[in-house]
Amino acid sequence: MSTAKGTTTRPMTRGANRSADLIAVEEPLEIRVSTETLAITMRTPGDDVRLALGFLLSEGIIKGARDVGTAAYCGRPGEDGYGNVIDVTLASGVVAHLEKLDATRRGTLTTSACGVCGRRSVDDLFGLTGPVPAGPSLDAALIARAPELLKQVQANFALTGGVHAAAVLTAQGDVLASAEDVGRHNAVDKAIGALVQAGRAPAKRADGEPAVLAVSGRASFEIVQKAAMAKLAAVVSVSAASSLAIDLAEKLGLTLAAFTRGGEFNLYTHPERLQR
Amino acid sequence: MSTAKGTTTRPMTRGANRSADLIAVEEPLEIRVSTETLAITMRTPGDDVRLALGFLLSEGIIKGARDVGTAAYCGRPGEDGYGNVIDVTLASGVVAHLEKLDATRRGTLTTSACGVCGRRSVDDLFGLTGPVPAGPSLDAALIARAPELLKQVQANFALTGGVHAAAVLTAQGDVLASAEDVGRHNAVDKAIGALVQAGRAPAKRADGEPAVLAVSGRASFEIVQKAAMAKLAAVVSVSAASSLAIDLAEKLGLTLAAFTRGGEFNLYTHPERLQR
Repeated sequence: MSTAKGTTTRPMTRGANRSADLIAVEEPLEIRVSTETLAITMRTPGDDVRLALGFLLSEGIIKGARDVGTAAYCGRPGEDGYGNVIDVTLASGVVAHLEKLDATRRGTLTTSACGVCGRRSVDDLFGLTGPVPAGPSLDAALIARAPELLKQVQANFALTGGVHAAAVLTAQGDVLASAEDVGRHNAVDKAIGALVQAGRAPAKRADGEPAVLAVSGRASFEIVQKAAMAKLAAVVSVSAASSLAIDLAEKLGLTLAAFTRGGEFNLYTHPERLQR
Repeated sequence: MSTAKGTTTRPMTRGANRSADLIAVEEPLEIRVSTETLAITMRTPGDDVRLALGFLLSEGIIKGARDVGTAAYCGRPGEDGYGNVIDVTLASGVVAHLEKLDATRRGTLTTSACGVCGRRSVDDLFGLTGPVPAGPSLDAALIARAPELLKQVQANFALTGGVHAAAVLTAQGDVLASAEDVGRHNAVDKAIGALVQAGRAPAKRADGEPAVLAVSGRASFEIVQKAAMAKLAAVVSVSAASSLAIDLAEKLGLTLAAFTRGGEFNLYTHPERLQR
């Protein structure tokens, strides 16, 4: 049985009915920079170079396409495990500041005291990325319409009900990049990684440039982080926003909308971009 | 304004209405074993010792309550950052096999070739934990009722719409432990950590013992891993299951049900436990 990319089938019983159910594929992906393992994420296979590039931009390892030398699957097609390891080399002269990598993934954080806290996480990221640029003006109707635009790229969600989606929109409502994945972080990394490939992340402020990150899942700290590192102006979630996501968006200058449903949304930060 | 534990308020505009919106709290928690940082997770504060113990059981660092010496917040109340670092010491004579810790979090995996793949992840976990014990019989009506039981512990979801929930049930339908958290993994760790504290994880097979993990979020590889390490018999999700979650449940002997809604569910693995 042929299935859509990113989906597979498994035997399933519902009530008295047995069938082959369409399921979202989950497989580990290892992301390496110059052969050093930075992260292993459980993702839906596909667009893996984009996932790696979006992840590296989010974590401050690369600042854009110019920092990337090569990015490809490790090994040779047909080898055991081929397709589950992406090795990225940096462009000549670019030094990987791997120590900046999120401590959750590295496990190498050294805190002299009882250190982590939300305020410090916000301040640290502000120190790394600075504020996102002002503008552009965003039509309230575009924010309200984001779930509808997102739905148009959710082919695998329609099939499996088991994947998140992310899309990057211009202020004019054009979809520049989108992705679906079992992980909501991965979906964002893939969409932003597509922009990195195209030389459009970090974003500039001009008509037709990337402006809005729309996500099907919750807007948490890390989702706002990814949008900020790509210099996007707004995050629009169909679902809820967390306290730290709101605090980060407020500090960095991102417009954050959540519970975007039925033509309305909760606006938490930076209303100055909105035009009604 | 007083708010429920795990929630806070932020200014919000919806249409023309301004208000103080109830929001789920997200803050980083650092988990240390004998002062070494193992992980930093973004979680909703509260039940943090449980979160740490559930996490350590899931990752194979501890095998149960007997392996734990002390588990407490680092530092003194009132100090900057107090409440965001849990330090666990192991019981006398217990050696922490930290090298077993999930490579995603450690970032220290050394693979000689292009190594990771789903099948190997399943085999590795089978090697670590072995199969879950057979039994108990589970009434299909209990599986169908799991979302309803879960809803009863979703106080903060009702308030914020921004948190996941997990609950551990007996085969008789009693709720032994439950938790809500901005992260679906954290909610499971907190619920299972409560069982660890009570000396009831890993579970035994007897009436009144922990048997079913019910989750509001998707059933992914890691959620099935957590249930398997606690020797639970079944995972019941309100949402979807991924391919690797199904493969892991099949291999380890867990019963996996998903899309549990309206009195029906998709049953993917080990139907032999079900009684209709």
